[in-house]
Amino acid sequence: MKMKIVVIGANAAGAKAASKAKRLNPAAEVTVVDRGTFISYGACGIPYYLSDTVTQLKELMSTPVGVVRDAAFFKKVKGVVVRTNTAAIAIDRSAKTVDLLETTTAERSSLHYDRLILATGSSPIIPVLEKVGLPGILTVKSLEDADLLKESAVAGARACIVGGGLIGLETAEALRQKGLQVTLVEMREQLLPGLLDPEIALQVEKHLRQQGVTVLTGSRVTGFQGRDAVEKVLLGEQEVAADLVVLAPGVTPNAALAKAAGLAIGATGAIAVDACLRTSDPDIFACGDCCETTHLITGRQVFIPLGSTANKQGRVAGINAAGGEATFAGVIGTSILRIFHINAGKTGLTEAEARANGFEVETVISPAPDRAHFFPGAKPIVLKMVADRKTGRILGVQAVGEGAVDKRIDTAATAMTFHATAEQLAQVDLAYAPPYAAAMDNLIVCADIMKNKLTGQARGISAGEVKRKLDEEEDFLLLDVRSPAEHGEVGIEGATLIPLGMLREKLDELPRDKEIVAFCKISLRGYEAQKILDAAGFSNVKFMDGGILAWPYHLRVGGKES
Amino acid sequence: MKMKIVVIGANAAGAKAASKAKRLNPAAEVTVVDRGTFISYGACGIPYYLSDTVTQLKELMSTPVGVVRDAAFFKKVKGVVVRTNTAAIAIDRSAKTVDLLETTTAERSSLHYDRLILATGSSPIIPVLEKVGLPGILTVKSLEDADLLKESAVAGARACIVGGGLIGLETAEALRQKGLQVTLVEMREQLLPGLLDPEIALQVEKHLRQQGVTVLTGSRVTGFQGRDAVEKVLLGEQEVAADLVVLAPGVTPNAALAKAAGLAIGATGAIAVDACLRTSDPDIFACGDCCETTHLITGRQVFIPLGSTANKQGRVAGINAAGGEATFAGVIGTSILRIFHINAGKTGLTEAEARANGFEVETVISPAPDRAHFFPGAKPIVLKMVADRKTGRILGVQAVGEGAVDKRIDTAATAMTFHATAEQLAQVDLAYAPPYAAAMDNLIVCADIMKNKLTGQARGISAGEVKRKLDEEEDFLLLDVRSPAEHGEVGIEGATLIPLGMLREKLDELPRDKEIVAFCKISLRGYEAQKILDAAGFSNVKFMDGGILAWPYHLRVGGKES
Repeated sequence: MKMKIVVIGANAAGAKAASKAKRLNPAAEVTVVDRGTFISYGACGIPYYLSDTVTQLKELMSTPVGVVRDAAFFKKVKGVVVRTNTAAIAIDRSAKTVDLLETTTAERSSLHYDRLILATGSSPIIPVLEKVGLPGILTVKSLEDADLLKESAVAGARACIVGGGLIGLETAEALRQKGLQVTLVEMREQLLPGLLDPEIALQVEKHLRQQGVTVLTGSRVTGFQGRDAVEKVLLGEQEVAADLVVLAPGVTPNAALAKAAGLAIGATGAIAVDACLRTSDPDIFACGDCCETTHLITGRQVFIPLGSTANKQGRVAGINAAGGEATFAGVIGTSILRIFHINAGKTGLTEAEARANGFEVETVISPAPDRAHFFPGAKPIVLKMVADRKTGRILGVQAVGEGAVDKRIDTAATAMTFHATAEQLAQVDLAYAPPYAAAMDNLIVCADIMKNKLTGQARGISAGEVKRKLDEEEDFLLLDVRSPAEHGEVGIEGATLIPLGMLREKLDELPRDKEIVAFCKISLRGYEAQKILDAAGFSNVKFMDGGILAWPYHLRVGGKES
Repeated sequence: MKMKIVVIGANAAGAKAASKAKRLNPAAEVTVVDRGTFISYGACGIPYYLSDTVTQLKELMSTPVGVVRDAAFFKKVKGVVVRTNTAAIAIDRSAKTVDLLETTTAERSSLHYDRLILATGSSPIIPVLEKVGLPGILTVKSLEDADLLKESAVAGARACIVGGGLIGLETAEALRQKGLQVTLVEMREQLLPGLLDPEIALQVEKHLRQQGVTVLTGSRVTGFQGRDAVEKVLLGEQEVAADLVVLAPGVTPNAALAKAAGLAIGATGAIAVDACLRTSDPDIFACGDCCETTHLITGRQVFIPLGSTANKQGRVAGINAAGGEATFAGVIGTSILRIFHINAGKTGLTEAEARANGFEVETVISPAPDRAHFFPGAKPIVLKMVADRKTGRILGVQAVGEGAVDKRIDTAATAMTFHATAEQLAQVDLAYAPPYAAAMDNLIVCADIMKNKLTGQARGISAGEVKRKLDEEEDFLLLDVRSPAEHGEVGIEGATLIPLGMLREKLDELPRDKEIVAFCKISLRGYEAQKILDAAGFSNVKFMDGGILAWPYHLRVGGKES
């Protein structure tokens, strides 16, 4: 008898699992059921379809050579049967059957399996709020959503996006590009919580505002108003007029079917699996957004649904279901986002996550051009690195800016996967030529500063801490060691100028009894100033992390405050 | 008594070493001597100065904020004394002195050191050939060279570049952009030998030809002709008319001073150093282009002069000379080049290098867009991966194409530094969003194919081997499994078309006694075809590595040969 493999869900993970299983075990009968009409599409492309960056919905469900990945394609090319509009409504584990409901005909049937793969995905969280069901309140997940949203997104309309995560931001950009008035509402005090530390997120927020998006952080949606369609979003006392609302407060794993079948569910709410992606039932596997996975830094189980992970897991689940052997080690928390003209990404843990996980951390903020500074087109990026004080191991890297952020994130993710220390990362033989990087790549400079900090040679203080000192009128010297020209152009109110080149001659003018915080454009001259003053016997000198480029607060521009 | 540290050479490695030594040990007296007038410049930027991409020579010797790194800068900012126009002509190791010659005044002096750092760099190889000293025959190394070359590079002039390595190619581009007629002569049978395998180098060569550069590989320069200036480059029987010749056959380490002082010189001809960059004399260190280093894959000593390595080594030599402790692990052979519209890079070993080092290798060629295929601006890149059959460890990655090659090279270099296997690389949590990558990044797809090849599931055959079979009229079936539309547009003469979607229905039409080689655009459908035929009992089926996109030979375009 042929082995029967059934896959529930025909998107990234499910489609991959089915194809892989059939390739590995051509004798197996592989059937995929999916409740939707469209299958195997790139949901991550939806915001780009919205903004007309991608013009045809079909492109999101085609192969690179333009063949639509529909049921006929899977039959002919992959040898896999796909049944669309077919919802799996129950799993009978003792009988090894899946109960199905054909959603257009309401016909019921049952399908036997020897091995079952759950690839049921995730769904947008719909907050339980007054009038959340009003027309005009939408989500961004399926292609059907995409079309509805695209119809509603007319220039001049007022859109309110609920949720300042990846999907919320990408949607904000898409709607702004279509000429809508966009308000973005985020419950927490910063955008992209969990993805970026506050001072890095602030750079993204600044950019969104520059692009005309109204950002309301620390604002909780309490309900909606409207008669035939949504008219207002209520934020406690406040309200935001809206013709269109996009709910993007996050997603939740579709684990109900698994739960009802008695499979183990993890603390994250997603289906629990082992390294082979086997659930608590040895004949049932799970992959993609519906299951949890191991975080490679903390060792903990996490729910981080991503298309990239879904594809890798689909492969592993497919191999194991077909009788092969494969494991999935886990994820390292990599995420990336392009928002208007800037890129923002992270891998590993943020400082906040690292502290919450009990690490004693050191951090570095390092802004620099993304290629040789003399090379036309060089663009700035700011890196933030988080390391474990005890071992020197890198725990996380965040990057934001117009430049090539993705390259540094991928390199850092790879290094951290292999438990790299700052010392090791500082020595990696990265590709150097002026169009690609400086001779010392941003990551290497950042790792070098981290080494200096870990050994106590470099002593940094955050922009936030300096801001606090200034606000509280603490008695310290904020020392700007840039050139007079740079100082004249833009500065921090309350700072004293002594260009680095003059510092050795002007030691007498500096107070020996006060704390001195030096800064420059990025932090390297600030650090040099600290070393010069250290050598001259000053005992309480630091530099400000990231210099003026990473200062997220108001600046004096020319003679005035900005 | 203050510790005296003397550094010979004030470019990348020397400048870095001096600054670092002084920062670490502010009490030390640090002196740098350099025979040139200009110091601390980015020699890698010279081709971009030539092409006017970088307009001011000053930019190459400035800090990112525009301060020129001259002797005054080093004195004021770094606390380091730099003596330019000062050649070190001998080292007396027992007296611990360096003999100096002021090149403008011819004044001689001597300088005592406690610790000496050699950062003497490398020089262009000048072939011993008839009339090589004629005016108009130049090199590209110093800023003086740059200005000379820029003066001679007038539109319409005929330039001949000798050497098809990195510098030769970058110079070819620069001169072509200035409107010169450019001929590139390379002794070996391919461009970029040692950097790329022949079939990947062929893609670069094709692009150079498309940009109007005449490429002569396998051509040895035998001499020059000219009366007052160069007029012809002689290639045995052949000759190339030239108003300007650029010698770029490679560089040689400046190790004569070290050798004369009795320091150990490695088999590469560069100064031998240990992991602390200490020479055979415990008080003398070496860093940058003048010394050899360890290759992290082979463990052998190599001479691979690069600005990125020089900077890293300068740091280590500076720390150790100043009494600290640091080590430099080695390099992994990473190189990158932008040539017109394409990027070409490598890290680790090429297939040829891996075989020469005794590895039993498996290779994969994988072309794909550099981001989600539906995302506008996605550009193709071709990856070649080389792995060790015994361990699955990745030995090298090459990449070429218009897309983001540098990101994949950096990621691969990092993975290989930590001895990654194909299995491990296939699982790295790389940053995914449509503007940056496909859900399965090019590297992950490539590593997955490698896994399939290592386990024998996927059986590839190179384009070169297929070409040979066709040329020798071997009796095999070359099976094009693309769509009829793709097949009509461009094809390989001699191939039979059966679109992948039809293959399962047309098994009867295929010969069971012949070898079958399937191919598509990139190799994925070709691999699927192999799996379908395997499952149907065909016993001798392979796919062609990299598909038609990686086929470097003539193609049929429409109905005709191209």
